[in-house]
Amino acid sequence: MAGNHMPVRPRTVVIGAGFGGLWATRALAGAPVDVQLLDRNNFHVFLPLLYQVAAAELEPEDIVYPVRGILRGIPNVSFGMADVTGVDPASRTVKTADRVYPYDFLILAAGSTSTFFDVPGAATYALPLKTMEQAIALRNRILGCFERAAQEDDSQMRRRLLTFVIVGGGATGVEFAGALAELIRGPLAKDFPALDCTEVRVELLEAQGSLLPGLPERLRAYALSRLRRIGVFVRLNAKVSEVTSREVRLEEGLAIPTETTIWTTGVRGESIVRSAGLPIVRGERLAVLPTLQVVGHPEVYAVGDIAYMEEIGRPLPMMAPVAVQQGTAAARNILRCIGGGEPLPFRYRDPGVMVILGRNAAVAHIGGYSFTGFPAWALWLIVHIYKLIGSRNRLVVLINWAWDYFFYERAQRLILP
Amino acid sequence: MAGNHMPVRPRTVVIGAGFGGLWATRALAGAPVDVQLLDRNNFHVFLPLLYQVAAAELEPEDIVYPVRGILRGIPNVSFGMADVTGVDPASRTVKTADRVYPYDFLILAAGSTSTFFDVPGAATYALPLKTMEQAIALRNRILGCFERAAQEDDSQMRRRLLTFVIVGGGATGVEFAGALAELIRGPLAKDFPALDCTEVRVELLEAQGSLLPGLPERLRAYALSRLRRIGVFVRLNAKVSEVTSREVRLEEGLAIPTETTIWTTGVRGESIVRSAGLPIVRGERLAVLPTLQVVGHPEVYAVGDIAYMEEIGRPLPMMAPVAVQQGTAAARNILRCIGGGEPLPFRYRDPGVMVILGRNAAVAHIGGYSFTGFPAWALWLIVHIYKLIGSRNRLVVLINWAWDYFFYERAQRLILP
Repeated sequence: MAGNHMPVRPRTVVIGAGFGGLWATRALAGAPVDVQLLDRNNFHVFLPLLYQVAAAELEPEDIVYPVRGILRGIPNVSFGMADVTGVDPASRTVKTADRVYPYDFLILAAGSTSTFFDVPGAATYALPLKTMEQAIALRNRILGCFERAAQEDDSQMRRRLLTFVIVGGGATGVEFAGALAELIRGPLAKDFPALDCTEVRVELLEAQGSLLPGLPERLRAYALSRLRRIGVFVRLNAKVSEVTSREVRLEEGLAIPTETTIWTTGVRGESIVRSAGLPIVRGERLAVLPTLQVVGHPEVYAVGDIAYMEEIGRPLPMMAPVAVQQGTAAARNILRCIGGGEPLPFRYRDPGVMVILGRNAAVAHIGGYSFTGFPAWALWLIVHIYKLIGSRNRLVVLINWAWDYFFYERAQRLILP
Repeated sequence: MAGNHMPVRPRTVVIGAGFGGLWATRALAGAPVDVQLLDRNNFHVFLPLLYQVAAAELEPEDIVYPVRGILRGIPNVSFGMADVTGVDPASRTVKTADRVYPYDFLILAAGSTSTFFDVPGAATYALPLKTMEQAIALRNRILGCFERAAQEDDSQMRRRLLTFVIVGGGATGVEFAGALAELIRGPLAKDFPALDCTEVRVELLEAQGSLLPGLPERLRAYALSRLRRIGVFVRLNAKVSEVTSREVRLEEGLAIPTETTIWTTGVRGESIVRSAGLPIVRGERLAVLPTLQVVGHPEVYAVGDIAYMEEIGRPLPMMAPVAVQQGTAAARNILRCIGGGEPLPFRYRDPGVMVILGRNAAVAHIGGYSFTGFPAWALWLIVHIYKLIGSRNRLVVLINWAWDYFFYERAQRLILP
């Protein structure tokens, strides 16, 4: 164990400035450790609102915060913007293109990426929604399809351009479907008066028999009826068998002509851990002890999406609250080890789940209580504004949401060059 | 002349949704013409503030407005997002990749692009600042150089990464130099506490003997001393002889090691007109009559940067007010022709010139009067907020400027993926 030959100021490397890595770093601020935080971007993304960037509801800048801004005035933390190219637990080093960082403790918080379950064409043609880059690309695609449709004389081609197929009826798919339907019915209908609205179609495909698995039946039924009411065409038990540049095929044989397939189902751990020889379990995530230590490597901690942990027989969800709590817990366990103590097991405090469906509509399941409609919607808004980092972001997001709410108007909907 | 066989609703094609094209289109709203506006982007850019995007002072979205949003509710105007690939005055058609647009009247408002005066390496290695794409690329480069310098052990390499050379002492070069110096002295100095500030250098090179040619001597002297006071290293009579990936060479023999050369000098008309066989004069701009009609083509009008026009022996500047006034005048002349009348000569009403130099400092020359310091700065702010399109843009820009002013803090300074 690392504690046996502990240096005066142990070096802790944190990979990833998402919720897990950032909260771990914050918990180590001012402690007797030297922390090196690494991320490929110079900003932290508030991922729960990423789909709103793709739906031209918010701008990229509204939901990011510069990592260096967060770390200002913390003398024991350094930030490096770099892609991690290798982790070597044997020599206790992390490699980037330019440097090698030795560590006494390592916190792996690299997050997750999309997996396409070997569906032919999906990795090539479907658009994932996991990173800022992907959200911007998706927004460009959607707005670009409308621009192309406006110059297209062939009605079949126009229909294909104006059909948007979302794969996955989990929280991201449901929230994005609602936001996209409202973008189209409101601002885009006004922007493209010459287009026939009946040619536009938002489809939501879910392989299981219900949207939002895991939520109580009443909330799932509310979400389904609400999405259908705002014009989302929901198909349940619809398994995708192939994606091409021109259509989505279902196992039952149906083919939906579309140029835009959005992939919100399927996540797996970031691939950096695969080459490290660390123990991998379901979904290419890391096997961790209840203390968040990676099995067989007591000086390596894994937190957030990249860590696989069960509680009462069910895996913890890949969500921001888990990452935040695990990041903080891992940091505290490291400090405990440095102080000569033993790491404590992690216990998840479930803050509940909230899914927004559009104007005045959401579902929430908190502390065993279920909410729908306006109360859930208002709660969703308050919590998300509160959780954003940075007062300016809060102010600007509030302005954008208010503009949308009162004027039925979206952000700049610009196709970024 | 087009008026001889005038159709009932003459088709007018407008190329470019910048100041010239947009104001021309607005002046044709509701008139008995069918207007087709074409632009390669789906947004209008408020170019006078573009340099602030490059300096991470404003976000791209703050200074753009969707073209379709501007044209809402105007039934006789269509917009097409497309690159114009050809203009054929003989057949009176405009070509894009997908379509051919016949016209009875054409308004060329395609703007200008950078020219590098055959300086070796400049076209390859210098970064221009004429489009949103270039502004984002420049911001990414500057912030990326700081991130790389933070991980660089070699002090000579660090100095090269932290040297920023701006070529051109006109309004854009001067404004950008001021904004960049304040970005570095404020937010970046706080973001990178481990970097040595004395290794950072902003150089402004001007080939002539003075900054801001054309302004009164008092204002030029004020601008020079002000820039030097905030740490900009200004070189006058400095002619660039070569740009490489690692340095800028001057004719006098000096070489300045840098990875970031910003090219703000030299503009010429957009190249679309060259293939059209239209009469080209100085700076590859179009020769126009006082009525803004292109010489030899009475049904073709040219406005803004792409048109070359002299008044009292001096060429009109390539600035937004000229484009706005010319666009409106060209549209009115077309309506006059349709009504059976004759086009009127254009007269420029000079609103004056304002150049901001940083916090509380600007120069303004309006109606023969000169202003410097805080009054000029306050005037600059008010005019630019007022001229922005869209109330939300005004509000967000105001918030960003206020945040910067009171907290010495910039926008998200994110390196866009």
